[in-house]
Amino acid sequence: MFSTDRAQAIADKVEAFVRETVIPYEKDPRCGFHGPSDEMVMEMREKARAAGVLTPHILPDGSHLTQRETATVLIRSGLSPLGPLACNTMAPDEGNMYLLGHVANEEQKAQFLKPLVEGRARSAFFMTEPAEDGGAGSDPSMMKTVCRQDGNHWVINGRKAFITGAEGAKVGIVMAKSDDGACMFLVDLPDPAIRIERVLDTIDSSMPGGHAVVRIDNLRVPASQMLGASGEGFKYAQVRLSPARLSHCMRWLGGCIRAQEIASAYACKRMAFGKPLVDHEGVGFMLAENMIDIRQCELMIDWAASVLDTGSLGTVESSMAKVAVSEALMRIADKCVQVMGGTGVTQDTIVEQIFREVRAFRIYDGPTEVHKWSLAKKIKRDHKHA
Amino acid sequence: MFSTDRAQAIADKVEAFVRETVIPYEKDPRCGFHGPSDEMVMEMREKARAAGVLTPHILPDGSHLTQRETATVLIRSGLSPLGPLACNTMAPDEGNMYLLGHVANEEQKAQFLKPLVEGRARSAFFMTEPAEDGGAGSDPSMMKTVCRQDGNHWVINGRKAFITGAEGAKVGIVMAKSDDGACMFLVDLPDPAIRIERVLDTIDSSMPGGHAVVRIDNLRVPASQMLGASGEGFKYAQVRLSPARLSHCMRWLGGCIRAQEIASAYACKRMAFGKPLVDHEGVGFMLAENMIDIRQCELMIDWAASVLDTGSLGTVESSMAKVAVSEALMRIADKCVQVMGGTGVTQDTIVEQIFREVRAFRIYDGPTEVHKWSLAKKIKRDHKHA
Amino acid sequence: MFSTDRAQAIADKVEAFVRETVIPYEKDPRCGFHGPSDEMVMEMREKARAAGVLTPHILPDGSHLTQRETATVLIRSGLSPLGPLACNTMAPDEGNMYLLGHVANEEQKAQFLKPLVEGRARSAFFMTEPAEDGGAGSDPSMMKTVCRQDGNHWVINGRKAFITGAEGAKVGIVMAKSDDGACMFLVDLPDPAIRIERVLDTIDSSMPGGHAVVRIDNLRVPASQMLGASGEGFKYAQVRLSPARLSHCMRWLGGCIRAQEIASAYACKRMAFGKPLVDHEGVGFMLAENMIDIRQCELMIDWAASVLDTGSLGTVESSMAKVAVSEALMRIADKCVQVMGGTGVTQDTIVEQIFREVRAFRIYDGPTEVHKWSLAKKIKRDHKHA
Amino acid sequence: MFSTDRAQAIADKVEAFVRETVIPYEKDPRCGFHGPSDEMVMEMREKARAAGVLTPHILPDGSHLTQRETATVLIRSGLSPLGPLACNTMAPDEGNMYLLGHVANEEQKAQFLKPLVEGRARSAFFMTEPAEDGGAGSDPSMMKTVCRQDGNHWVINGRKAFITGAEGAKVGIVMAKSDDGACMFLVDLPDPAIRIERVLDTIDSSMPGGHAVVRIDNLRVPASQMLGASGEGFKYAQVRLSPARLSHCMRWLGGCIRAQEIASAYACKRMAFGKPLVDHEGVGFMLAENMIDIRQCELMIDWAASVLDTGSLGTVESSMAKVAVSEALMRIADKCVQVMGGTGVTQDTIVEQIFREVRAFRIYDGPTEVHKWSLAKKIKRDHKHA
Repeated sequence: MFSTDRAQAIADKVEAFVRETVIPYEKDPRCGFHGPSDEMVMEMREKARAAGVLTPHILPDGSHLTQRETATVLIRSGLSPLGPLACNTMAPDEGNMYLLGHVANEEQKAQFLKPLVEGRARSAFFMTEPAEDGGAGSDPSMMKTVCRQDGNHWVINGRKAFITGAEGAKVGIVMAKSDDGACMFLVDLPDPAIRIERVLDTIDSSMPGGHAVVRIDNLRVPASQMLGASGEGFKYAQVRLSPARLSHCMRWLGGCIRAQEIASAYACKRMAFGKPLVDHEGVGFMLAENMIDIRQCELMIDWAASVLDTGSLGTVESSMAKVAVSEALMRIADKCVQVMGGTGVTQDTIVEQIFREVRAFRIYDGPTEVHKWSLAKKIKRDHKHA
Repeated sequence: MFSTDRAQAIADKVEAFVRETVIPYEKDPRCGFHGPSDEMVMEMREKARAAGVLTPHILPDGSHLTQRETATVLIRSGLSPLGPLACNTMAPDEGNMYLLGHVANEEQKAQFLKPLVEGRARSAFFMTEPAEDGGAGSDPSMMKTVCRQDGNHWVINGRKAFITGAEGAKVGIVMAKSDDGACMFLVDLPDPAIRIERVLDTIDSSMPGGHAVVRIDNLRVPASQMLGASGEGFKYAQVRLSPARLSHCMRWLGGCIRAQEIASAYACKRMAFGKPLVDHEGVGFMLAENMIDIRQCELMIDWAASVLDTGSLGTVESSMAKVAVSEALMRIADKCVQVMGGTGVTQDTIVEQIFREVRAFRIYDGPTEVHKWSLAKKIKRDHKHA
Repeated sequence: MFSTDRAQAIADKVEAFVRETVIPYEKDPRCGFHGPSDEMVMEMREKARAAGVLTPHILPDGSHLTQRETATVLIRSGLSPLGPLACNTMAPDEGNMYLLGHVANEEQKAQFLKPLVEGRARSAFFMTEPAEDGGAGSDPSMMKTVCRQDGNHWVINGRKAFITGAEGAKVGIVMAKSDDGACMFLVDLPDPAIRIERVLDTIDSSMPGGHAVVRIDNLRVPASQMLGASGEGFKYAQVRLSPARLSHCMRWLGGCIRAQEIASAYACKRMAFGKPLVDHEGVGFMLAENMIDIRQCELMIDWAASVLDTGSLGTVESSMAKVAVSEALMRIADKCVQVMGGTGVTQDTIVEQIFREVRAFRIYDGPTEVHKWSLAKKIKRDHKHA
Repeated sequence: MFSTDRAQAIADKVEAFVRETVIPYEKDPRCGFHGPSDEMVMEMREKARAAGVLTPHILPDGSHLTQRETATVLIRSGLSPLGPLACNTMAPDEGNMYLLGHVANEEQKAQFLKPLVEGRARSAFFMTEPAEDGGAGSDPSMMKTVCRQDGNHWVINGRKAFITGAEGAKVGIVMAKSDDGACMFLVDLPDPAIRIERVLDTIDSSMPGGHAVVRIDNLRVPASQMLGASGEGFKYAQVRLSPARLSHCMRWLGGCIRAQEIASAYACKRMAFGKPLVDHEGVGFMLAENMIDIRQCELMIDWAASVLDTGSLGTVESSMAKVAVSEALMRIADKCVQVMGGTGVTQDTIVEQIFREVRAFRIYDGPTEVHKWSLAKKIKRDHKHA
């Protein structure tokens, strides 16, 4: 019901590819603690290219599916945590491509966007800063990284944290503050002025390159590589924000749909106390609750996407969707683990990883509490206007 | 987004009527413990007729709005617990009209449906039976009321409980078991063979006539007043089931939207510890969670309605919606009470009543647990077929 | 384990009295919407006196049981919502007696405390103020009622709300602000200068006299009737606070233990889908969760009581207990209602009333959120000192 | 309040040791995915021995602290996930020592118990079986491993799963079914007839040796190494069951107390939106809820322990405690992660690991649902006897 014929056709191809080709890679030893190796990612992408499902949400003419259509496709790509990597629908690249598609000029697109769309490069978005520095986390106004103009270049200094995929990325988008306000810069990576201090050991493990802490030390960027205008950085971040939030919801919903399939199959087969687990209401009810939660996630994503498709920034709607979906996915994944008992906490199935990924997702892209805070502000504003 | 122009226009008129004309009746002393008096109901209906919003979901030509359109209208009628009474969109009449519209023959429609659609009569649906008899509650197979053919009549004996609106109803639909299976009969009320033993004192108080326990003692019904065919009663109950469940969701969602308006206004005005309540995250977050829950309820109702509109019985989908919506409405109403502190537990606002009504709704039309039980069965069936 | 022999003996007598003598009164028509009539209360108290269970927590020599002992006794008195009324362990009298026992001088005790301990009079505590005035609710610093000295008298003006039991009370404790700070006064009631504007219609209905809104208009009180010293009112309120909070927890825990008994008996008897409800995990698990919650409530009450018994004010501990117990009781009562299906929302059993009472309890004596707020402050303080 | 002077003194020493000596090991690279290396464990134990805190719950004369005393000590040992390893209070050794102390004969104690108490060896308990075989998980009646007598030996065959610490253990307790019923055998490890097929990759990582799947292939055990009598295996399992469950609760409560310390310190320091996190109610309330949950865990453990100390098996009470505590610990750990935002999902602090461990604990030693199932049975039994 949510989709168009063209999106449905793409989604079906993506699902078939993920189920047949990608899922077997879940047992590949190149899936490491900090995410799969780039070698494996590129190997999967070759197969995706051959199957016609690489970057499937961007059409050959460069146009982007609508957000509702994108949902149909990205949910399916998420049926494996590796699916978005294979299909090039993963974060942060998907959001970075979206941002460049909307803000970059033609030269910038040719140099930085093209290799991303072609799946030949990965990118990183340098915004968040270390808590120990008192830098920008959920509150972007606390940004400490600075940039100053020096002739035809900008010079950037600061530290960043949680920079997903920085290790191995070829394209960087760096955010820093000038006297005008926030600025964004496009950077070729690696660059000796951007030093990876360490890759964080995190509970999730689906992102190649993991999440890095980096030091930016007198990074010189030609003025032509500024994205848009000086001081407009937060405005551009807003453009990226809602679609990127939603695409996270889409991908991880796919993961939880898969977890529910696995847990349901387990519950229908495993016996305990004289009958299959699913016939125990204590188990069957958990699966029923998941069934409802999954449907609600689909509906929230589709609704928020439809708002974006009207041209709205959708800040409020994507906040609502992010909270509702990430919290629901946690409930779903948690119940899938519980239904499977001991097996649920092992890596014998992908359910255990999905649980860990979804735990992190409740914090990534704005913790639940920050979104509720901004929704409460909205309620107050609306009351004043009423 | 969910609706058509015609439904939107009707809904706007209904909302204006409820806000301007119905809400003042909430303080009318004729609102009793067992629901408002019929005198007051008929007085409000006169005004609804004049305003063109009586039975607004059934068009002058007798056709019914689609379920998605109905949602748009019924949610608005529910902005006051009295709204559905005034507009003739309330239970059980709304469901009974739907059933008769689909199953009754023309004579039956003229005699029993017409006065209902015109808002001149109320009706009751005699299905549930007393727990103390071991009769049919959530498990209809336990039905103990029997009917046997006697010449050109049927004779019915049994006891029923939770018969909403029986006191004061003019039309009855009585369910009983024959050797063929379940049967339904149309009955003019009052009838001396249907004796109201007592009206239950329940936590809710929106239904005129309350919920009665009745004894049926050798009730004789002409065979022409059997609804449909003998033994097909459960099939007809299925026809009524999903739309009636959904319309409950619609009306009480309207109630909770109102509660949220009241609680938000309170929180924006009332000060504590140096600032308005809404600026305390402990309060603002509750309202934000309600904002999300309300949206999810709208989406679930719209989705389940769209399934019914395809011609499906929608049993699974309406179960999912009933669970999700009734549990969400409880959360919403509970938080509205809590936000308002002491005022929240008083009848100074309608929030207190909405809380009580919604508590009952988690049980009426099938408790949450019965729906989860049937959803778990569905999961098992789907697994077998996969 | 929690108690002494003497307390256990008293508690056993109280329980026998409540079960045999008080519970039959639950169906007495004198139980009204604003609580039972005083006539019925005094009738029950005669029987309590005869049974030796009147004011059982205060010994004949005027000494008070320890708080841990009190818990043992008050929980049992709460097995019926009428039990505390019959035994004179109810709010606000129990807290008022405690306060007078600690702060009043001998003359004041003879005049005001004696009739309360003897169960011949009811009392009211005039602290909370109407939200519509911007008066003191959870934030006592917002108190607007004022007192000023006039010769050998004090003159008090203001409005109060939620004054439990004001209607029918013979003893009043009135709080007002002088230039020194908060003051407390003992007042004979009724007094024409204290006018009951209205009794609020609230979701709960166990308190005789209900909860009133009153206007205090030039009330003149002899200086000898000031409780303690001028400006010390909040200090005395602290003395009353923790024991009063805890005794609410005790009484309503008793109520929920009773609800669990009723729901368990129902679930063991009522059949559905081929077996007793209790054999459905969906039902049995709810009762199991209640069993755990009940135990945790007992433990929290006993622990907080033991802190008070050391002589501590127990502000933090009683806040923790109030939140934990009131929220747990809500879960328990809610599940008891749900287990009993349609019967659960009727007044055929006392479960429905207990549900409503417990809903109000989450707000009375400080809403959950206010307690969490003060606990968070405590965490911050402790961190600074560490 | 819960403890004796001697237990308090031991607990204080244990806490000092864990804080000063053990916590630094948390960053030791020998902490692997399948738990810390035995080399590191033995190194820590040397220090524990020197500090007088090795096997602190068993006194030099071989007597065991009471369960309430044990709680005081084990909670403190759990302040680091490594603490129980260092102090020899960890699972499964602690439970195995308890079992041998109660059931083994003197020769068996000398051979198998002594090296455990001295902290020189680790042990494993071979009960659970692989789900893929349809073997015993939560339902022990499904046990498939068999033993048959062959002269003066027993021969055992079967497969086991989730055998914690099997890799590296020197002492094994193997459960198998004879014609008489379940039997237990003491085995020197390693033994070529017990082959470790693989060590499971699980979400938790605190147990040295991890959790293994093993095949037992014609294992021959001298009859003198049978623990107790043939057919009494389940009875002995009961002896071990409740104390082992409770000691898990104790240790992981210690872990969550530590997590709360870390999260509180973070929230008091980290700024966002103009004030420290702890001053945001959205954060402060989470910490307040944890404060309450931690207290409730302590109380439940102490209560269940006191029942065991009366000599009761405490099956019901330890089930109640296991459910209440494990679910509460999950809430606590989850909120600590959330309070710390991005930092919470990294291994920069121990909070992330505690979250993963606690997730597994909701399944280990009987999933929540199995305990609720047995509590519901208890409710039914009690009702029948009432």
